[in-house]
Amino acid sequence: MEHHDHEHKHRKQIVNRLARIEGHLRSVKEMTAGGRDCSEVLLQIAAVQKALDKAAKLLLKDHLESCVVDAVLHGNQEKVLEDLNKALDNYIR
Amino acid sequence: MEHHDHEHKHRKQIVNRLARIEGHLRSVKEMTAGGRDCSEVLLQIAAVQKALDKAAKLLLKDHLESCVVDAVLHGNQEKVLEDLNKALDNYIR
Repeated sequence: MEHHDHEHKHRKQIVNRLARIEGHLRSVKEMTAGGRDCSEVLLQIAAVQKALDKAAKLLLKDHLESCVVDAVLHGNQEKVLEDLNKALDNYIR
Repeated sequence: MEHHDHEHKHRKQIVNRLARIEGHLRSVKEMTAGGRDCSEVLLQIAAVQKALDKAAKLLLKDHLESCVVDAVLHGNQEKVLEDLNKALDNYIR
């Protein structure tokens, strides 16, 4: 539950991506409620998953470039790397 | 872009799940905008992905139980199976 002070190059871009994915997911929900063909809904859910993968990748790159480099430079990388390893273990199954 | 007439057992449940995932994703977006720790955001994106996998699985089961069985009984399974195969190829990489 930590916040950090330093800037991330792509934060705004990631937030915009997540907003677009949210809109996409809303339309998938509406398609489903409207009885759209299951195969079509499945294709759209796959597209949402791919977009989330891309957002996560961008986030990870940002994190490596800023937080991790920053932590290493300040000699306090232990917790940052531990948290990141945990998140990666969870993300990439 | 086809709609179908027959009922799906879990449609309402799938729509509810998608609505919950949409809310979850909105909060992930807000966490990101608020500068929450990247590892924490990554964990939440992974949770959204898992929830989407579950929704897709439920959708698929519904589809098999209703559309596919229905199509086979009416002897017009070719298109339904072709679409489903395409969707599965896309969904499961």
